[in-house]
Amino acid sequence: MSTHDNVLRVGMVGYAFMGAAHSQAWRTVNRVYDLPAQVRMALVCGRDEPKVAEAAGRLGWDGHTTDWRRLVESDEIDVVDICTPGDSHCEIALAALAAGKHVLCEKPLANTVEEARRMTAAAARAQAAGVRAMCGFNYRRVPAVALMRRLVADGRLGEIRHVRAVYLQDWIVDPQFPLVWRLQKDRAGSGALGDIGAHIIDLTQYVTGQLITGVSAITETFVKERPLPAGSSGLAAQADGNGRATGPVTVDDAAVFVARLDGGALATYEATRFATGRKNALRVEINGSLGSVVFDLERLNELEFLDATRPAAEQGFSRILVTEPEHPYLSAWWPPGHIIGYEHSFTHQMRDFVEAVATGVDPAPSFADALQVQLVLDAVTRSAERAAWTEVEPALAEVAA
Amino acid sequence: MSTHDNVLRVGMVGYAFMGAAHSQAWRTVNRVYDLPAQVRMALVCGRDEPKVAEAAGRLGWDGHTTDWRRLVESDEIDVVDICTPGDSHCEIALAALAAGKHVLCEKPLANTVEEARRMTAAAARAQAAGVRAMCGFNYRRVPAVALMRRLVADGRLGEIRHVRAVYLQDWIVDPQFPLVWRLQKDRAGSGALGDIGAHIIDLTQYVTGQLITGVSAITETFVKERPLPAGSSGLAAQADGNGRATGPVTVDDAAVFVARLDGGALATYEATRFATGRKNALRVEINGSLGSVVFDLERLNELEFLDATRPAAEQGFSRILVTEPEHPYLSAWWPPGHIIGYEHSFTHQMRDFVEAVATGVDPAPSFADALQVQLVLDAVTRSAERAAWTEVEPALAEVAA
Amino acid sequence: MSTHDNVLRVGMVGYAFMGAAHSQAWRTVNRVYDLPAQVRMALVCGRDEPKVAEAAGRLGWDGHTTDWRRLVESDEIDVVDICTPGDSHCEIALAALAAGKHVLCEKPLANTVEEARRMTAAAARAQAAGVRAMCGFNYRRVPAVALMRRLVADGRLGEIRHVRAVYLQDWIVDPQFPLVWRLQKDRAGSGALGDIGAHIIDLTQYVTGQLITGVSAITETFVKERPLPAGSSGLAAQADGNGRATGPVTVDDAAVFVARLDGGALATYEATRFATGRKNALRVEINGSLGSVVFDLERLNELEFLDATRPAAEQGFSRILVTEPEHPYLSAWWPPGHIIGYEHSFTHQMRDFVEAVATGVDPAPSFADALQVQLVLDAVTRSAERAAWTEVEPALAEVAA
Amino acid sequence: MSTHDNVLRVGMVGYAFMGAAHSQAWRTVNRVYDLPAQVRMALVCGRDEPKVAEAAGRLGWDGHTTDWRRLVESDEIDVVDICTPGDSHCEIALAALAAGKHVLCEKPLANTVEEARRMTAAAARAQAAGVRAMCGFNYRRVPAVALMRRLVADGRLGEIRHVRAVYLQDWIVDPQFPLVWRLQKDRAGSGALGDIGAHIIDLTQYVTGQLITGVSAITETFVKERPLPAGSSGLAAQADGNGRATGPVTVDDAAVFVARLDGGALATYEATRFATGRKNALRVEINGSLGSVVFDLERLNELEFLDATRPAAEQGFSRILVTEPEHPYLSAWWPPGHIIGYEHSFTHQMRDFVEAVATGVDPAPSFADALQVQLVLDAVTRSAERAAWTEVEPALAEVAA
Repeated sequence: MSTHDNVLRVGMVGYAFMGAAHSQAWRTVNRVYDLPAQVRMALVCGRDEPKVAEAAGRLGWDGHTTDWRRLVESDEIDVVDICTPGDSHCEIALAALAAGKHVLCEKPLANTVEEARRMTAAAARAQAAGVRAMCGFNYRRVPAVALMRRLVADGRLGEIRHVRAVYLQDWIVDPQFPLVWRLQKDRAGSGALGDIGAHIIDLTQYVTGQLITGVSAITETFVKERPLPAGSSGLAAQADGNGRATGPVTVDDAAVFVARLDGGALATYEATRFATGRKNALRVEINGSLGSVVFDLERLNELEFLDATRPAAEQGFSRILVTEPEHPYLSAWWPPGHIIGYEHSFTHQMRDFVEAVATGVDPAPSFADALQVQLVLDAVTRSAERAAWTEVEPALAEVAA
Repeated sequence: MSTHDNVLRVGMVGYAFMGAAHSQAWRTVNRVYDLPAQVRMALVCGRDEPKVAEAAGRLGWDGHTTDWRRLVESDEIDVVDICTPGDSHCEIALAALAAGKHVLCEKPLANTVEEARRMTAAAARAQAAGVRAMCGFNYRRVPAVALMRRLVADGRLGEIRHVRAVYLQDWIVDPQFPLVWRLQKDRAGSGALGDIGAHIIDLTQYVTGQLITGVSAITETFVKERPLPAGSSGLAAQADGNGRATGPVTVDDAAVFVARLDGGALATYEATRFATGRKNALRVEINGSLGSVVFDLERLNELEFLDATRPAAEQGFSRILVTEPEHPYLSAWWPPGHIIGYEHSFTHQMRDFVEAVATGVDPAPSFADALQVQLVLDAVTRSAERAAWTEVEPALAEVAA
Repeated sequence: MSTHDNVLRVGMVGYAFMGAAHSQAWRTVNRVYDLPAQVRMALVCGRDEPKVAEAAGRLGWDGHTTDWRRLVESDEIDVVDICTPGDSHCEIALAALAAGKHVLCEKPLANTVEEARRMTAAAARAQAAGVRAMCGFNYRRVPAVALMRRLVADGRLGEIRHVRAVYLQDWIVDPQFPLVWRLQKDRAGSGALGDIGAHIIDLTQYVTGQLITGVSAITETFVKERPLPAGSSGLAAQADGNGRATGPVTVDDAAVFVARLDGGALATYEATRFATGRKNALRVEINGSLGSVVFDLERLNELEFLDATRPAAEQGFSRILVTEPEHPYLSAWWPPGHIIGYEHSFTHQMRDFVEAVATGVDPAPSFADALQVQLVLDAVTRSAERAAWTEVEPALAEVAA
Repeated sequence: MSTHDNVLRVGMVGYAFMGAAHSQAWRTVNRVYDLPAQVRMALVCGRDEPKVAEAAGRLGWDGHTTDWRRLVESDEIDVVDICTPGDSHCEIALAALAAGKHVLCEKPLANTVEEARRMTAAAARAQAAGVRAMCGFNYRRVPAVALMRRLVADGRLGEIRHVRAVYLQDWIVDPQFPLVWRLQKDRAGSGALGDIGAHIIDLTQYVTGQLITGVSAITETFVKERPLPAGSSGLAAQADGNGRATGPVTVDDAAVFVARLDGGALATYEATRFATGRKNALRVEINGSLGSVVFDLERLNELEFLDATRPAAEQGFSRILVTEPEHPYLSAWWPPGHIIGYEHSFTHQMRDFVEAVATGVDPAPSFADALQVQLVLDAVTRSAERAAWTEVEPALAEVAA
């Protein structure tokens, strides 16, 4: 490991929403967990100097830069944490791995399968030199999600029959909401599908231990033209009724698909930004021959579990308040019933990442895992275009090549 | 109307689960509602004489018979209520309509599209003679469902963007559950799809006022061979490990599909008998540009409604206890908060049917409406076979022919 | 038993809300349950001849009368069902018992302890002659309540530590709601306390198997003067701002009290008609050393049960859908997940009453049980007046005398 | 203000559960909120040198000491944060105020009314010199609680009729749980009453803007003798069946009481550590003439609000996800639907405290507010002893003296 005196010096690229969440986690992880290395928040990078300087001070970074290449190549950095939009993940990650830096990259891994394949290959090469790479599917680290996985892995659900997963948001229902970068294909890669659909694909595969083999999908863009954000340029093709400049939405607003998993389960998936009243409703239900589980991210401290081996007169979905010391990640936090929040999933992610790096093991999800998610996203997109059942391409052949 | 002295003499064919539910409703409807006709429970028909005699006494029918043709043609009968398995619906309904009897037929209307088309054509012909025909999608008469429809019709949801509907049961999760008639294609037509999938297709189309135009589907039979029920014969092809005779399950255990509605909404549907822990979980959520609604049949006295025109700080899904006199069907029942049950949906159905017949108007859902559901079921089946997007055939051309 | 040919001829006094609920139950009980006697709905009594005649026809009674004494003394009646306001319970019940009729009397048993004592003594005397008497605490017959009792009786909750019970309604929050009989002490005996407080007192004592020994209470009448109902006379002492005649509310709007149970538990009780938004919210939670249960009458098909002997990581309140054949009363009804309503509690009550009468055993709750509830109500009233802890008087001494 | 260069140097006494929670908040507050002063975590104090040294490093304090007097009198400290058991609050607070330090003191303010009066008087004297004092009822800073208060203050609930508040925990249900300091009257002052009952007293008074005027209470100690904790001495009077040393529990396990508020509402309160299955269930419902609110600390990101001025057919309790920028404290956190946790209430508390101190205004709740809570606790204790209604003593007279 490239740490000095058991210190991991982190450089983070990007400082917006994800950057703030990661900063809170880097700041907290050693305060809560007893770890084999101490994190130093060394350097943060952004394109706008005054803004990144302000962010560095506010978020608690020792220094800042506007040059990500300098960050990536610095001798003062052990870990590169990539929190930028998807279109820059590949270039930064490749450079960081080439420079021998451990990499934590936000999801989705890349905007295209081709980029994800290159990143995965680079990570595989770097691994030989003891360099670690991980993709930030942080919801795996929600204690209730980890508990779901444990129940499945312990056989408590029996044979998995059904997966139903939705990720519902509503922040662009208003047609006057502006054309931000997340609505532009060249920046974001895709819309609801890649942004939040990727989460439920990863989460359900992780929990069930099964991979999606094929899909039938529909995608839709309900609002096809939106006002440009204040200060934007170069995008406008048209003007709306008020003379305000508008531009085309080039990503999906919603994606729905049915799927088969390699263990024999049927699944339904829905990712949308048009579910009025749903703010961050990642909901998953899994039915097996011996039991079922239900999870809702808006109530992330709870897990519903039905154990079908109990006497019929007593069966019911149990609302487990996942705040006990017996639950994953929680012995270090507050007493039972004192709930945690969204941001804790990042603290737990950093705990696992730091532990893996410091002890020289590969963290999960790997870039290969994230590539597999990318291949599912790709199959969804192709299925919607072809109006037909579409198999997910295998990840392994390419990686082996 | 063919009533005598404002009395409607009902003859019911079938006396099992549906027959018992209908009997409770026929018995109750005039006790609760002030209607233009009085129901007389005249005659019940079944194949097994001792059993149907016992059922007649227990359920409150004046007489019984083992010959449905006698019932259908009797001068003492005004209404024929068909509660048999789907394979006999068509024959009985055609005979009843031909005999000038009003017909109430359980869903699904028939086991095949071809039968449903013939029934619809017969109903159209009979209509000219003042004979009424209706299909028993009783969940339309759950007050909360009727309230949903009213909210949509009043524009309170705005433009509908998403429909997600599931109907989850678990009564055949155990592979030792026997091969009852509902698991045999020749009797039941299909499995979860026609039995419970039909309900969510009808319900969502009814509530939204939109029709499904195309689907992409998967169906699955998880347990392919089951023990024969005690006393059955002629089905067995094999024996299980215990030497017990088994036979093949010839219907789907589960069906999942994505769909488009003709008003522009995306939809997901799932019907299954393998959702461990879910007993009768018909759940629907509809998101529109101005609001959303959520319904769960296991809590059928409640409706969740989110009104997105309210101030942001106060928005939330309101749990409406649908027991107020202002709510559909409820002014005749108990005070607010005193809930009703599953069976009341049938009492409400009978109320609407009796009122329509007695006042000479066509009840809904018509056979044509039910045919359209059948066409969706057919598209789902074909889509699953073809592994491709499949358009729903139009119902109207045939009806017009 | 005084039945003829296994027929129980019922005469009901009163035909309003309770009368309608009882009628539905009498009509249904033999249709659903296989019982040792058949119910005949023989005679209904009310003071207003045209109205009671109409009610008899609508509710399904063979005949009607305006003279309750004639009903009580008729040779054509085996059972007297008392559904009148509390001020007439005592006189009717005494006459019916004296005439050798089985009596089912609505709760609360009487308006005063003194009346309840006389009724209990009369029931004890009649019992010797094989005459049965029961008080109509119908919520004991909600399947989920019966299941709670079974769990407690089976020791699944261990030692009971806490009872918290509320019965919340809101139908008189509006100060313009008129001064109906339920708001007049001479008719109703008390307000929220006797009407709905009686239910939670009986229910919690029944479920825990423990009796309340003492209480500290507060009662309140928030709205002290209300408009007279249209057509009322003789009550008005004043007029409101609009010149509309008003009269004083002479009962409690709300009663709250803490209590001790004879098994060592602490309890809190609240009965109110001013809980805005709560329609019929009878809610009970019981905590024991080994488990807890939660019940809500607005979701009467559900019971939450926490089993503290389960592994810590899996503990949680299980939402049991109380619709299985293994659950009390339910094997005769619909398949699992097909819920029942408020009225079914009366059908179950009639089942138990008919079975007890027909087989010659005493039904529960007895008049003595109901007297004990009356004594708790009395202690609550006296505690509120004295502003001090007040012991519940013993019921037994007097009965023995 | 005694800050130097807009820096507030904090010294914290105590570093256990509360100390860890406060540390997380001090560490975070300037990272999230834009405040007029920067917090410096200067010094932490504890009695055990190795442990406090370890805690200082782990929790992020610059230095540590075992002498709280040194901390209180240090020129390097502007704020004293008291996180010790209640028996030392008074002495430390008086010394800190005398030394001109701003004080944040955990609740309950003191173990006795007499101490609380002295602290309140000292705070009043210090106030004249610009020294601020606040008591840490952190739940006031849960956004949903602050939203409740806003709704009440805006008149949205109308006239308050009912308050029902419980704080349910279960951590000492097991009779083998040891006799920790919280179960000893000389250390903790009282049991469930002061520890968690104090929270619901403060919270309901804060939200309603009304004060409790009198109470009728019962308290109970279910388990009267417990094993001594490992390493304890001087407490044991007895030994249990296993020869293990035990000692008497000298505080209440549970307290229940009914109360009147000075605005005319009736209230019920329950604080217990014996509610099996309830981990941290602070639940409050408030009913007013125009609406109602419901809050549950185990789901602290949600508020249920019923607006009785809405049309009857649409009324229902709305589950507001309190994560919008329009909601108190939340514009600085994550996007809607991304929930916060228990610890955030402390971050919000520190925000308000820092802002008040830095801008020279008095923070709330003041010591006088906390004294009033202490007077209610005292009335509850006396009522339980006297078995009678007990008025809450006025706080003001003494303060004025």
